[in-house]
Amino acid sequence: MASMGEFELLARIRERLPAAGERLRLGSGDDAAIAVPGGATATSVDAVVEGVHFTREHAELSQIGHKALATALSDLAAMGAEPGEAYVFLGVPADLDEDGCLELLDGLLALATETGTAVAGGDLARAAALTVVTTVVGHGPGPESFVTRAGGRPDDVLAVTGSLGAAAAGLALLEAPELGVQLSASTKGALCARQLEPMPRLAAGRALGSAGATAMIDLSDGLGGDLGHMAAASGCGAVVEAASLPLADGLEAVARAADRDPLELAVAGGEDYELLAALPAERFGDAKATLARLDVTLTRIGELTAGEGVEVRRPAGGRLEATGFDQLG
Amino acid sequence: MASMGEFELLARIRERLPAAGERLRLGSGDDAAIAVPGGATATSVDAVVEGVHFTREHAELSQIGHKALATALSDLAAMGAEPGEAYVFLGVPADLDEDGCLELLDGLLALATETGTAVAGGDLARAAALTVVTTVVGHGPGPESFVTRAGGRPDDVLAVTGSLGAAAAGLALLEAPELGVQLSASTKGALCARQLEPMPRLAAGRALGSAGATAMIDLSDGLGGDLGHMAAASGCGAVVEAASLPLADGLEAVARAADRDPLELAVAGGEDYELLAALPAERFGDAKATLARLDVTLTRIGELTAGEGVEVRRPAGGRLEATGFDQLG
Repeated sequence: MASMGEFELLARIRERLPAAGERLRLGSGDDAAIAVPGGATATSVDAVVEGVHFTREHAELSQIGHKALATALSDLAAMGAEPGEAYVFLGVPADLDEDGCLELLDGLLALATETGTAVAGGDLARAAALTVVTTVVGHGPGPESFVTRAGGRPDDVLAVTGSLGAAAAGLALLEAPELGVQLSASTKGALCARQLEPMPRLAAGRALGSAGATAMIDLSDGLGGDLGHMAAASGCGAVVEAASLPLADGLEAVARAADRDPLELAVAGGEDYELLAALPAERFGDAKATLARLDVTLTRIGELTAGEGVEVRRPAGGRLEATGFDQLG
Repeated sequence: MASMGEFELLARIRERLPAAGERLRLGSGDDAAIAVPGGATATSVDAVVEGVHFTREHAELSQIGHKALATALSDLAAMGAEPGEAYVFLGVPADLDEDGCLELLDGLLALATETGTAVAGGDLARAAALTVVTTVVGHGPGPESFVTRAGGRPDDVLAVTGSLGAAAAGLALLEAPELGVQLSASTKGALCARQLEPMPRLAAGRALGSAGATAMIDLSDGLGGDLGHMAAASGCGAVVEAASLPLADGLEAVARAADRDPLELAVAGGEDYELLAALPAERFGDAKATLARLDVTLTRIGELTAGEGVEVRRPAGGRLEATGFDQLG
């Protein structure tokens, strides 16, 4: 690595990046990338840091690259935006060589290709811990076409895509492979994949926006915390029936083996990157049918209220702590 | 710090950020910021990492914040773009408390206000070393309104704004305050300020674009390296007369005391964040007069050629090594 030059690595990186596209008029390699956005843009930044968000013990380099872009694109999904450009900073520790950097980048680029995202620029520096900071730009016809967290109204139905708790269960399996979990290899593999290679719900997000979602957020910190953000931004309270939560296949078996509460993993586990949407009650059926055509389930889990705060009701009575993941806590 | 919550710090940060502006329709606090760009955008990412780009021993936290944004905006200056939005990732080491984060941010925000840049979003994570990654979006009426590195032609005049070597001299003074440099306190202070708080040449960049610059780049890695990038992108060679370089006030005294070659500091030192432009010879006079009205000098230092490679000719004959700063070398 000592002999590796930044410029040589940059040249190998640039070979892999698109020179231009429909919106992107000039890609990586100049002082800035040039784009012609058209309508309105939604822009978000997301960082993953070794030791905080992943370890190289559990995640392959290509998976780290995938997840770095996936977590950023998930924010665009939650806006109902069409993915456009991504800009990537890579902080390279001394023990990651040039081929390792490219392996990480190739994982990121595979997801970029799959989602129609153009990696248009970035930066590179030495870092104490492997760090990937991804800025993504999404597009829509106008500023009102995006769904924020703030438009929810009392009595709106709360609905989540897919299933909850998979990423937390996957993490538990990765961290303690000696757990005697009675599950098929394919179910275990699916749970680990949800932790290591989450897929942003981009098509579902756009469909929910078109179906009349009044507010939307992606579940990165956990349902409890993220619902709190949406309810507060919308000036509402929220009630969720824990019995209605769509638990991931295998979550209960992992929770049993790890002596954890499956509902708690589903509510506070985080990193599922599913979408939580608020919808007028009369729009829920159409939204569910639209998502079914995308092969995505949509489950009604509660509603916004005229009150304050978030209540997650246990099936047998009582409440779950509705907290999320705190990056600096 | 152990008791500090991410959400509390985010709330204190968001109080300081603009909610919206002319282009920015929704600032920090949702899944993504919403903007209506209008014409075309120029987007760039720049990172500063403790131990690589700065030390807290020499730079105050507010200066680190200033420099993080300044280096990113300098790329927009080199495109002739109008600054628009900035997105900031802050990697927070364990020994930086909440007030320290805000001090850094306030330095960044002061420059944002001064330059008309809206800090529209970002992210925050634990990091081993203090890291600031800044993505900036600049604007122009259309994609052709930006000046790339690639439009230079043989016989175009090469010109630089301001003066060279100041940042390298400032760094030498900061790193070895015991150097017996015969300079006034104000000259020393000005050199250190060029290292710690560079000002992006935004107005000069737009003026050079309007004045017919065919190619432009900001001097971050040093004139030698950056001229090489521009010449290569333009498919040209370049010749520079070292005797014509506008050396910063005090550079020669610092170089003498440090037993360094002042020309080498000016050519290879880097971090001056001046602009290097290529212009048709007949446009140089007008461009110089236009920049004079902005109180910025423009100095003719050489020309692009039909050849290959960059030659920096010493006054007494011979050539300077035209290399720049390699981030990973």
